[in-house]
Amino acid sequence: MGRLAMVAGLVCGLVVMGTAGAAIAAEVSGDTGDCIGCHEEVTPGIVEDWRASRHSRVSPAEGLAKPKLQRRVSAAVVPEGLAATVVGCAECHTRNADKHPDTFEHNGYSVHVVVSPEDCATCHPTERTEYADNLMANAYGNLMGNPVYTMLVNDVNGIKDFDGVGTPHTDPDVLSNADSCLFCHGTVIQMQGLAPRETAMGEMEFPVLHGWPSSGVGRINPDGSKGACSSCHSRHQFSIEVARKPYTCAQCHKGPDVPAYPVYQVSKHGNIFLSLHKDWDFKAVPWTVGKDFTAPTCATCHASLVTTPGGEVIVERTHRMNDRSANRLLGAIYSTAHPKAADTTILRNKAGLPLAAELTGEPAAGFLIDPAEQAERRATMQQLCAACHSREWIDGHYARLERSIETTNAMTLASTKVLLTAWERGAAKGLAQNDSIFNEALERMWVEQWLFYANSTRFASAMGGADYGVFANGRWYLTKNLQMMVDWLGFKTGAGGGGK
Amino acid sequence: MGRLAMVAGLVCGLVVMGTAGAAIAAEVSGDTGDCIGCHEEVTPGIVEDWRASRHSRVSPAEGLAKPKLQRRVSAAVVPEGLAATVVGCAECHTRNADKHPDTFEHNGYSVHVVVSPEDCATCHPTERTEYADNLMANAYGNLMGNPVYTMLVNDVNGIKDFDGVGTPHTDPDVLSNADSCLFCHGTVIQMQGLAPRETAMGEMEFPVLHGWPSSGVGRINPDGSKGACSSCHSRHQFSIEVARKPYTCAQCHKGPDVPAYPVYQVSKHGNIFLSLHKDWDFKAVPWTVGKDFTAPTCATCHASLVTTPGGEVIVERTHRMNDRSANRLLGAIYSTAHPKAADTTILRNKAGLPLAAELTGEPAAGFLIDPAEQAERRATMQQLCAACHSREWIDGHYARLERSIETTNAMTLASTKVLLTAWERGAAKGLAQNDSIFNEALERMWVEQWLFYANSTRFASAMGGADYGVFANGRWYLTKNLQMMVDWLGFKTGAGGGGK
Amino acid sequence: MGRLAMVAGLVCGLVVMGTAGAAIAAEVSGDTGDCIGCHEEVTPGIVEDWRASRHSRVSPAEGLAKPKLQRRVSAAVVPEGLAATVVGCAECHTRNADKHPDTFEHNGYSVHVVVSPEDCATCHPTERTEYADNLMANAYGNLMGNPVYTMLVNDVNGIKDFDGVGTPHTDPDVLSNADSCLFCHGTVIQMQGLAPRETAMGEMEFPVLHGWPSSGVGRINPDGSKGACSSCHSRHQFSIEVARKPYTCAQCHKGPDVPAYPVYQVSKHGNIFLSLHKDWDFKAVPWTVGKDFTAPTCATCHASLVTTPGGEVIVERTHRMNDRSANRLLGAIYSTAHPKAADTTILRNKAGLPLAAELTGEPAAGFLIDPAEQAERRATMQQLCAACHSREWIDGHYARLERSIETTNAMTLASTKVLLTAWERGAAKGLAQNDSIFNEALERMWVEQWLFYANSTRFASAMGGADYGVFANGRWYLTKNLQMMVDWLGFKTGAGGGGK
Repeated sequence: MGRLAMVAGLVCGLVVMGTAGAAIAAEVSGDTGDCIGCHEEVTPGIVEDWRASRHSRVSPAEGLAKPKLQRRVSAAVVPEGLAATVVGCAECHTRNADKHPDTFEHNGYSVHVVVSPEDCATCHPTERTEYADNLMANAYGNLMGNPVYTMLVNDVNGIKDFDGVGTPHTDPDVLSNADSCLFCHGTVIQMQGLAPRETAMGEMEFPVLHGWPSSGVGRINPDGSKGACSSCHSRHQFSIEVARKPYTCAQCHKGPDVPAYPVYQVSKHGNIFLSLHKDWDFKAVPWTVGKDFTAPTCATCHASLVTTPGGEVIVERTHRMNDRSANRLLGAIYSTAHPKAADTTILRNKAGLPLAAELTGEPAAGFLIDPAEQAERRATMQQLCAACHSREWIDGHYARLERSIETTNAMTLASTKVLLTAWERGAAKGLAQNDSIFNEALERMWVEQWLFYANSTRFASAMGGADYGVFANGRWYLTKNLQMMVDWLGFKTGAGGGGK
Repeated sequence: MGRLAMVAGLVCGLVVMGTAGAAIAAEVSGDTGDCIGCHEEVTPGIVEDWRASRHSRVSPAEGLAKPKLQRRVSAAVVPEGLAATVVGCAECHTRNADKHPDTFEHNGYSVHVVVSPEDCATCHPTERTEYADNLMANAYGNLMGNPVYTMLVNDVNGIKDFDGVGTPHTDPDVLSNADSCLFCHGTVIQMQGLAPRETAMGEMEFPVLHGWPSSGVGRINPDGSKGACSSCHSRHQFSIEVARKPYTCAQCHKGPDVPAYPVYQVSKHGNIFLSLHKDWDFKAVPWTVGKDFTAPTCATCHASLVTTPGGEVIVERTHRMNDRSANRLLGAIYSTAHPKAADTTILRNKAGLPLAAELTGEPAAGFLIDPAEQAERRATMQQLCAACHSREWIDGHYARLERSIETTNAMTLASTKVLLTAWERGAAKGLAQNDSIFNEALERMWVEQWLFYANSTRFASAMGGADYGVFANGRWYLTKNLQMMVDWLGFKTGAGGGGK
Repeated sequence: MGRLAMVAGLVCGLVVMGTAGAAIAAEVSGDTGDCIGCHEEVTPGIVEDWRASRHSRVSPAEGLAKPKLQRRVSAAVVPEGLAATVVGCAECHTRNADKHPDTFEHNGYSVHVVVSPEDCATCHPTERTEYADNLMANAYGNLMGNPVYTMLVNDVNGIKDFDGVGTPHTDPDVLSNADSCLFCHGTVIQMQGLAPRETAMGEMEFPVLHGWPSSGVGRINPDGSKGACSSCHSRHQFSIEVARKPYTCAQCHKGPDVPAYPVYQVSKHGNIFLSLHKDWDFKAVPWTVGKDFTAPTCATCHASLVTTPGGEVIVERTHRMNDRSANRLLGAIYSTAHPKAADTTILRNKAGLPLAAELTGEPAAGFLIDPAEQAERRATMQQLCAACHSREWIDGHYARLERSIETTNAMTLASTKVLLTAWERGAAKGLAQNDSIFNEALERMWVEQWLFYANSTRFASAMGGADYGVFANGRWYLTKNLQMMVDWLGFKTGAGGGGK
């Protein structure tokens, strides 16, 4: 093959950069120049993508010299030797080599495949620290370290058979879990040794990584750190434009369990974004309301540093995504105040379960942020609302959201009562029978009540995407599903269907 | 807080506009200048958004001077004092002050929060009049003033409990209704008095508005008028580009009950829009086929003034959205000719119900437009089709749509027969038992037959988005749901499931 | 009507082109000039759309003169008389007149309405030939010529009634089929003679075409050829930009049966496309990775000629869409290797059914491509992956896809066992009872197991759109639906619901 032959002809490390790379060659470190020498042939998409990045054009020293609000580098200083050149391949993939078990010898360099938040923290330490305290950084453990949720994973991803009576179960394999829940939550990446491979450069050795690939938000990296900056700041362009657009969040927040993007899409904000964002500036730092954008995206409300046209800060940047939100709307049986800790495996309700509330809805208040903290987080968000909305508007909006949390919790409770009754009457088997609470039809209907319909309704209220609170997995289904659960109980117990 | 301190330091009404506003200052009225003086600090997003609007740059006098087809102002004249300046804050929010119960004293001005179609009619009277005759302007009353539909609202949004047998019902509260059905249909906004509030300017009084916020299409305004121009012409940019893009319609027309946007998205028209609209002109008035756009959006077919490249009018502008359509495809149990009146609470079928057809499908013909009117509306739409399609193409397309209306009505009727049978046999309780027709599982399945599956199938036919007529809530579900209804009836009556 | 009066005043064939057309007049053939003379008045949208096309600006001779990789014309030569002028109305609609039964006399020209792949093959023979060997070209026959699938069509699109016990069935009419399944699969277009019609030019005769309109991918054209290039290369702009954007594929690949577009939308690739494609070049031929685009669309992976920035070919162009894919993920009960022949009506499993596998999953291997061919197709795709991904990444991704195929097939098999048990126990009627296998509730649930949930899960694995493999029609439903099937069987047989 011509291309590979050409690659083979290159002497890596000595190659002179071609015309395409010439304009930026002066600022690229020698190490990175070596990488590019081969990789612009071997993985041209990566190299070109990086060339389109800000990393390829601006050195940390230049970044540090920016006025405070314009700075993207949160470090006070960056290590000597990194400041003067642009941020290229070697700057990230050979950084902290001794801390990365996946480091391998590669053409004279100690390279690691999996760049971790610790590497990014060289220039962006504040973001690393905030994100570490974000529920998302703990997404792997919060799922797989919580016996209730692990039970759900097993029952959803496991293989079932049919033996004429029941459905014998086999637990899911690691590939299936990596390909489903853990695709978003993150896998555990483990270095398993080196393996040889034929390349255009002859035989070379490369790491064998268990759990790879993964760009899940709670990825456990070989260096032990949690999270992947590339989940949202997609490699290798690391474009702030991508992270600020709602399509990034939609990667994991579009399904019936967490329909944030669909709700946004039909909200007034979403409409304006979709209709007008071609004229907005998604690269400006700070991000100026009314000037750079005229309606918020996910990032605007939950993460970005936003200023007025006059240069006053409206909200500070954060990478702890619930800093501006009082209530957890998703991911739990009942919506409660946010948990205090990002590690939710430490939650315990009175029944001893690792949940933020009892099965009957009472919050495990000791583990949750208190009303004062809720008020502060809510107030932060409302400062942003106030850039375009009156106080009356904001209060009216939030009153509906609060009520929506109450009513969806009430409808979840009603469905829980059906389930508890079924367990009592022997129509299904639950915790008392030492059985999974997710493996029977009625239990699945119960899960949909809170995971799909209550979540959808709350998101609709939070963002003003009304049909997701009615016919598109909203209140219509909260009431219909409850009725179906009652009927199922009736059919199962021979009572001929429940009442209404 | 620094920002508020700065605001407090301004003397409202005397402020000199900053650099950003200088270019347009000459044409801004003194009153509006006063508003901006404070509000560019207090609500900068609104002021900047308005600055991006046409209203901020063009005076009504300039608008009136345009050639006929280019005019956006439909008034023959505009009141003296408004003609020479651009349309700013004061021009709308202090207009008709005596007619607005929500008017309040605000820094020397009589301001009202809720700008109504009557205010907009100062310059756009034709649009106001057409829209008032639109079903959408009556969306509040058509839902909440129709006892059948109100029953549906109550059963969907109400709170249910479970008492071991049935599901005791509590009617929905006003916040829940405002946050669901009425988010699109519109709320009733009522002035409830003034309340003091601390602001950066010291304590001030502001109106307390029941039902606020609301941008629903059938909003009942404090001045008694119906509708909100901002539903589609989003404040404060009032961009024709936004109104013409399908994302605006998708705000309320994306769910399973009225999947217009999803169907459009997978239609050939939608594909071309999504792929090429970056090169189109969404601001041109009139809108020229082939030149400004090469495939229609929702607005093109249902609202816009469209001309040929030669300047001939193909279709006139209308804000009565069913002017070019013969049949009501959505929102009713059976698809019939459009109702004559936009107020559908006056409909009466032979059974005395406020519906456009009997429960068994026969149209309440006296209340509906006649075949001649249907033909005229259809012909108007087809003139637009003919800009790009041959007569044969159009006839073939419409033959399928007509047939789709017949077959979906037939499938609705089959499901109604199951329901009537269930009521007869005591498996469910209906009107004869003085019970809601929406509160049992079988009744909910029946609703989905017409509200989801028949609607989806008809939209798919109307716009050529085929899967929405098959597997995506289409014919697949029309036939499956019917079978499930028959089986449910069998399970409920102990007959062991119905036949096929 | 003014516009028609103006048209009537034109003398077709002698008209001098107006200013708008002047710039390109020199290269338009005389015949096409005649067409435009009337049609820019009669169907201005078509003429303007064509004017925006490459066809309107480049002659085949110019196309032929391009360097090899830049050529869009695959013919070695084009017929004399066509080479020097641009490709206009007459060049396509009067081409091969004697082979088109729909040819009719029209103002002195022998015109046919339905331009077929054979017409396009004048300049694009390679694409025609490749496409003819594509499953999509055979989409009509593969559905309507396969008795199993025709049974499905009939049961989905047919009209049902309710007679108090069962649901008497009427087979679907041709309009309903054309408007649903055949909208994507394609109709059979038949010339039925000429009919007179009043026009602005007086009475004229036009063809009456059965099955028109149709742009389905497997359309049977009046000349006997299969397919419609306009399915993807939408008329009359025939924009490569449109064909390369995922919205084109979404026309038919968005529903629950084949959710390719929704999965793509939430994949990392889809996110980057949606966020950044405004800066990409969708018109460049060849298409250069990293330079013209930084993430693939559907076309990139399945069809396009892609090169490196250095000009090396990564993958050759193909119009046989499964050239780079080893397994058939959709459209069949079990996922198997791709069928050898594009005509799948010749498939026979051991039971004699025209299916690629037994009802219990064993592949009809003799009719399917062998492992070596699978490996080659997979390797072709992986060459493209390798432009941006390491070998480890690719291997990890494919391991998950392979496992996903296995597990979804296993979950389909479990559901099939429930169905076979139901047939045995008389709870439903199947092939042995000489009954449709798609007309009962349990059978419909079984279809959803493979057509919706297994398909969705596999697409999610193939493209990395994880929630479509979990809660959005993925594994959640594979396990829940199986449980519901078991319960339904229990309710139906009076056993009070199955076990778990």
